[in-house]
Amino acid sequence: MDKYKVTHRLLKQSIKSLVNRQLTSNNPIYRSISALPLGSGGRNPQLYRSFGSLATKVERNPSFSSLNSDDVSYFKGVLGENNVVQDEDRLETANIDWMHKYKGSSKLLLFPRNTEEVSKILEYCNSRRLAVVPQGGNTGLVGGSVPVFDEVIINAGSMNKIIAFDKVSGILVCEAGCILENLISYLDNQGFIMPLDLGAKGSCQIGGNVSTNAGGLRLVRYGSLHGNVLGLEAVLANGDVLDMLGTLRKDNTGYDLKHLFIGSEGSLGIVTKVSILTPPKLSSVNIAFLACEDYLSCQKLLSEAKRKLGEILSAFEFLDSHAMDLVLNHLEGVRNPLPSAVHNFYVLIETTGSDESYDKEKLEAFLLHSMESGLISDGVLAQDINQASSFWRIREGVPEALMRAGPVYKYDLSIPVEKMYSLVEEMRLRLGQSANVVGYGHLGDGNLHLNVSAPRYDDKILAQIEPYVYEWTSKHRGSISAEHGLGLMKANEIFYSKSHETVQLMASIKKLLDPHGILNPYKVLPHSLCSYS
Amino acid sequence: MDKYKVTHRLLKQSIKSLVNRQLTSNNPIYRSISALPLGSGGRNPQLYRSFGSLATKVERNPSFSSLNSDDVSYFKGVLGENNVVQDEDRLETANIDWMHKYKGSSKLLLFPRNTEEVSKILEYCNSRRLAVVPQGGNTGLVGGSVPVFDEVIINAGSMNKIIAFDKVSGILVCEAGCILENLISYLDNQGFIMPLDLGAKGSCQIGGNVSTNAGGLRLVRYGSLHGNVLGLEAVLANGDVLDMLGTLRKDNTGYDLKHLFIGSEGSLGIVTKVSILTPPKLSSVNIAFLACEDYLSCQKLLSEAKRKLGEILSAFEFLDSHAMDLVLNHLEGVRNPLPSAVHNFYVLIETTGSDESYDKEKLEAFLLHSMESGLISDGVLAQDINQASSFWRIREGVPEALMRAGPVYKYDLSIPVEKMYSLVEEMRLRLGQSANVVGYGHLGDGNLHLNVSAPRYDDKILAQIEPYVYEWTSKHRGSISAEHGLGLMKANEIFYSKSHETVQLMASIKKLLDPHGILNPYKVLPHSLCSYS
Repeated sequence: MDKYKVTHRLLKQSIKSLVNRQLTSNNPIYRSISALPLGSGGRNPQLYRSFGSLATKVERNPSFSSLNSDDVSYFKGVLGENNVVQDEDRLETANIDWMHKYKGSSKLLLFPRNTEEVSKILEYCNSRRLAVVPQGGNTGLVGGSVPVFDEVIINAGSMNKIIAFDKVSGILVCEAGCILENLISYLDNQGFIMPLDLGAKGSCQIGGNVSTNAGGLRLVRYGSLHGNVLGLEAVLANGDVLDMLGTLRKDNTGYDLKHLFIGSEGSLGIVTKVSILTPPKLSSVNIAFLACEDYLSCQKLLSEAKRKLGEILSAFEFLDSHAMDLVLNHLEGVRNPLPSAVHNFYVLIETTGSDESYDKEKLEAFLLHSMESGLISDGVLAQDINQASSFWRIREGVPEALMRAGPVYKYDLSIPVEKMYSLVEEMRLRLGQSANVVGYGHLGDGNLHLNVSAPRYDDKILAQIEPYVYEWTSKHRGSISAEHGLGLMKANEIFYSKSHETVQLMASIKKLLDPHGILNPYKVLPHSLCSYS
Repeated sequence: MDKYKVTHRLLKQSIKSLVNRQLTSNNPIYRSISALPLGSGGRNPQLYRSFGSLATKVERNPSFSSLNSDDVSYFKGVLGENNVVQDEDRLETANIDWMHKYKGSSKLLLFPRNTEEVSKILEYCNSRRLAVVPQGGNTGLVGGSVPVFDEVIINAGSMNKIIAFDKVSGILVCEAGCILENLISYLDNQGFIMPLDLGAKGSCQIGGNVSTNAGGLRLVRYGSLHGNVLGLEAVLANGDVLDMLGTLRKDNTGYDLKHLFIGSEGSLGIVTKVSILTPPKLSSVNIAFLACEDYLSCQKLLSEAKRKLGEILSAFEFLDSHAMDLVLNHLEGVRNPLPSAVHNFYVLIETTGSDESYDKEKLEAFLLHSMESGLISDGVLAQDINQASSFWRIREGVPEALMRAGPVYKYDLSIPVEKMYSLVEEMRLRLGQSANVVGYGHLGDGNLHLNVSAPRYDDKILAQIEPYVYEWTSKHRGSISAEHGLGLMKANEIFYSKSHETVQLMASIKKLLDPHGILNPYKVLPHSLCSYS
């Protein structure tokens, strides 16, 4: 979720300005956000729209009804006037994703206040064949949280209560609409942290995080939400409420169905409550910024860090010299903490533990040893919070620097660590002088952000990148979406990462749980497999 | 998995001797294993059998075929003569679980050597309506891994190759039949550990561990298999092979279907390969044995340990004074390391980290502080491996001591930590002088082993315990099976821990994946919901 980190609000503002400007012109800078402009359907949503870097036609499912005044009256009866929104300005915001890549044409935005209301809405929509899109903070990057056509938007924001917190076990139970940052603040007062953190935390909601299996910055330490979410409550398309809101670390009673709802992007049910295991807040954080001369050294350093720092390692991020150059050239006030020489790779290591002096000594000993063994050629340890922030600023500033540098093709990939950087090198060979290929990301998680910065958007360059990048990733059993999900953008690309049999089973499960396909249609699964009546 | 730890092999032998003796007599000691003897169906499997503490009639599904010589010929053609076993002695072993509670009457035991063979077997069995039971090390405790009637046994033991290990990421890929201990040894040589460990490791197979979502001793540190299993390959009832064998920490491309197969006890498919994230082996292990005067202090100590020891905490186990008395009275060579006074509770804390001296200092400081604040009244830190083993021996010796003490009713429950011991106290009040109620378990995981040791098996005592224990657990949103699964024993008790809507959806998913219900029938789901054609 690099695009979000720390600079999220500022970046959001600047992107918004850019996009608003470009939407009314044909200036190619707009393409720095969507790679290709919105198709004609943007103006005529009843026909089709094209999306992403390879155009895909999506037709509105003709079996879906269109909203009428009786429907609106029904919803007002259930939710009250104030929670049924038809105001154009508010709908405009809810119809567009925050990157302004996708724009729906929904006429109705609903704010249920509890599970029962969600249940009544879905039961009604299911019987009326009204398609819906569940929406949290609407911070997704793949068009998953906005309507494609006229789907009714169900926003979870009014379900934002903390239900319970157990200080002994660290288990938090809350409603799906709780904003991540509010949960982080609440837990901070209790001496705990959320097991996930990401730059969009000021807007994103825990229900959306769970529904998209958000990754973020703490995954290398605390693992994915499949491990941390202990239970959830979800409402199915027909209005049935599934109470799976366990608060237990161990529960082997039947199939663990909550996992179906973690990462299915609201297409199987709407998550209404969540139970999550939160780690205690530890007092000691240390950050080192290091230089490595080759990728093999980065890999070995990761192995060593896992072993020597083991239990206190909380982040292992990397960027190449191309990324560093961009940051130094395009971001104000950023300086290279290791200026004495040009290095090929930079690594940021963070430790989090319970004892300041022990942890620091441990990290220092590790760095000394890594220096002596030649894995790192230079390095510096943050002496205070300002230095720590400045190190993070380099790593987190890469997406912003890329954006400022001009047109950029962006890919978020999981690739086995040992092969990860080969893709960057191969892309450099393929593209030669025509573009600047940049590699950075969460090395500790095997998550590469491959970015191709070009002087202009050019179909020849794109043709050199795609489908090569997806094919390469697929060949190495990687994932074409490490942490962002498939949404609308990559629904038809799923076969690059999943087998046909597996996708077919996904479609069967979708059909079982949502027979009329009203939940977040056109998303996640390939359109060829989604036929509903 | 207390019953297994360390003493597993010895215990297995002694239980086996006991059971073999009792099976031919009516000596009530047999009931120390099964609570109630096998029903008449044990001798006439075509009618019905009664199981567990509350008798349940199970009728053989009449839609299943019976094995004939053509079937055997087919299997010999696919697997070769040697891998199609009809030998009575070998079948006898495979038909009985290791606690000798459950006995099937299968006439055929198959040893496929690869996924393709599993696929051919299942495709054939599905078309012939031959029911099957997948079997790994057959170390389960709930009758999940043996036939109920004449199901064909498919043992994974011949699929035991390690396919790949990536030392950078710590990701192991192996076949399902690998014995856990062999994987542990293999990884040890590479400087890694398995994220799970349990006493049955010498026999149990990783495919079985994954299929039953085995808990074990490292869960408090490394979490459950839902977090650690990165991918798997499974064969569906119709022979379709689902390749979900990802080796990535992050992969958000569609529904994460592997979780359906983790913990579904072989009833949705047979796991044939597994990819698992393994942590690096850390060099420093410390163990403390402590005394607390009340349960609240144990709880507070757990909170403090999570905070102060945080990242190095690797076990937090407890036993009450009743458990300690049993161990001291019934196990040879065990002595109380804190003999100066009688204490109400004992806690075993283990830390695992990367630096011997730092970790020890940290633990010592924690213990000193806990002593000063009155949370612990006494304690001792192991000075060498022998002392460490002797501390573990106390905790791990409880099940054996209980077995030696006589008839015992055993319950494996997850309960929110703050309420966990209340159940033990309530049971003491209910039972008065008629039985000795013992509480111990994995406090760090919220997993209580409630044991009622009685002078004899007595329906009046049982009626005081059940269904009260299940109802109490259900009322407090606990789990009636923390780590052992439901198997045959608790298939009909699922509603104590799961809602009707959730169980109904489980049954629908079972029907979707296994329309004829041939995979491990009569297990996991309540029999009332399983009707197949």
